[in-house]
Amino acid sequence: MRALWLENNKISLPDIPQPRSPNEALIKIRKAGICSTDLELVKGYYPYTGILGHEFVGEVVEAEDASWIGERVVGEINVVCNECEQCLNERPTHCENRTVLGIINRDGTLAEFTNLPIANLHRVPASVPDEMAVFTEPLAAALEIQQQIQINPSDRVLLVGAGRLGQLIAQTLALTGCDLRVVARHKHQQDLLKARGIMTISEEEIKPWRWDVVVEATGSPSGFALARRAIRPRGILVLKSTYQGEMSINFSSVVVDEINIIGSRCGPFEPALHLMESKQVDPTVLIAAEFKLKDALKAFEHAAEPGVLKVLIDV
Amino acid sequence: MRALWLENNKISLPDIPQPRSPNEALIKIRKAGICSTDLELVKGYYPYTGILGHEFVGEVVEAEDASWIGERVVGEINVVCNECEQCLNERPTHCENRTVLGIINRDGTLAEFTNLPIANLHRVPASVPDEMAVFTEPLAAALEIQQQIQINPSDRVLLVGAGRLGQLIAQTLALTGCDLRVVARHKHQQDLLKARGIMTISEEEIKPWRWDVVVEATGSPSGFALARRAIRPRGILVLKSTYQGEMSINFSSVVVDEINIIGSRCGPFEPALHLMESKQVDPTVLIAAEFKLKDALKAFEHAAEPGVLKVLIDV
Repeated sequence: MRALWLENNKISLPDIPQPRSPNEALIKIRKAGICSTDLELVKGYYPYTGILGHEFVGEVVEAEDASWIGERVVGEINVVCNECEQCLNERPTHCENRTVLGIINRDGTLAEFTNLPIANLHRVPASVPDEMAVFTEPLAAALEIQQQIQINPSDRVLLVGAGRLGQLIAQTLALTGCDLRVVARHKHQQDLLKARGIMTISEEEIKPWRWDVVVEATGSPSGFALARRAIRPRGILVLKSTYQGEMSINFSSVVVDEINIIGSRCGPFEPALHLMESKQVDPTVLIAAEFKLKDALKAFEHAAEPGVLKVLIDV
Repeated sequence: MRALWLENNKISLPDIPQPRSPNEALIKIRKAGICSTDLELVKGYYPYTGILGHEFVGEVVEAEDASWIGERVVGEINVVCNECEQCLNERPTHCENRTVLGIINRDGTLAEFTNLPIANLHRVPASVPDEMAVFTEPLAAALEIQQQIQINPSDRVLLVGAGRLGQLIAQTLALTGCDLRVVARHKHQQDLLKARGIMTISEEEIKPWRWDVVVEATGSPSGFALARRAIRPRGILVLKSTYQGEMSINFSSVVVDEINIIGSRCGPFEPALHLMESKQVDPTVLIAAEFKLKDALKAFEHAAEPGVLKVLIDV
């Protein structure tokens, strides 16, 4: 089968054998998305060799439990052991022996087929089209914020960053009724937000020390600095993006201001599917372009351009 | 009056005029404590000129409301405006216009007299002696942890550091019934904990990635690194000490492990007084030495020696 292969910071499109893991379903990919993590893997921020990609919608073509065959599915990306302390304490996404689709020791979804355990799969409601369902994983990641902290309708919430993940976070935070403002660098990012009635704010307008909750979704030191400046004493600063290398921080001010900093990663799939099914969230507005799998190298080039939102691969 | 004066990183014991702020009570100091913050102020970590000291027990000798005169009191250290956004939102310890006793723009308590608004004062129960009451402020700071986060009896809790504040944190955390272990560097720190049935642990015994809550009370980069290593995914890392300058941290791992880092400062006085009155906490075991005010310079030298716990000043 054709697959987007990463090795030594180079991507290629070789023909490789179709995967077949025992005890896992075989899924024919319908659509896959390119995520910022994929671009970072290509840059070599984390070591990985194999098929890239972890955002997908597909169809089960082989499975031990025949009732799944023919089902249109999305899949959770952490494949877990169910035996370690994290799994036994209801933190499966933190499994100590996990492999992660297209990220850690497991071939990903930018290919014709992939494998996942049935336990990782979620059926896609008929009313959710492929180009929407392919956003389930990042939308779930956005919802993880509300799994971790309570956003009150009366909260002043600042979102720093309105890229691929930021747009989805903005849409989900807006549902809480909170007083939300979003820092969006690019005009079309701002326009997408405004079209949904979500208010943007310029850096200069942001009063320091005033925001109950700040979500940092840029992954840049300047974005972090802005977020730190904006948060009020005893406020919550959510880190929703990873940072390259080490970062310097004045922890004394975190103590004096009693700031709460919380890291946030993978989230719940079913609520993500439900919010798309009920049309409360519409990720399809993020689609910047769609490429065929044979043109995936061009798709990566496009996705890496500044300000470009979601690039999809039609398999 | 005699007072311990800090100026240009040097302490001295001049005779200065007795303070008299309008609208504030005049308090005759009975005993005062030397805190790590005082030692850091002398080192010049924060700019401050004036009388040092913020831990005290004293007697009200002048006050607008005569019912306070003759009362034995302790006092909250943040003097607030009641008008700013923090005050109006029930975060008075974060008042944007605050002065802080012996720390920010307000003469402290290592002197014969001090001033504080009546609103800052708490009457000391008769059964709590001076040498116990003088610990109210740091004990309240220890209790702030439980104001901020819920410690469950089933939690594995690691406390890194068993110095002045660490000992009080250990005593208060132990009351929750949690599975507590304390990293104590000095033998007499360990002995104090063991005498109360609190278990110590050596650095080598600490399994990484296993602790539900870790409290960092050393203020050192090595203590922070140990705390970060110990915390489990989705665990809570409480910063209970300030750090000199900037510190470097890998925030990507905080995101991947979904760690919650929370700074913690001043706490509630009444529960601190109550825990001493009911003898559930006994801070007097920390007393390493007591000096007369005229020997306060010697007292500071002693307090700065490694491993020395609380040095008191009898005024």
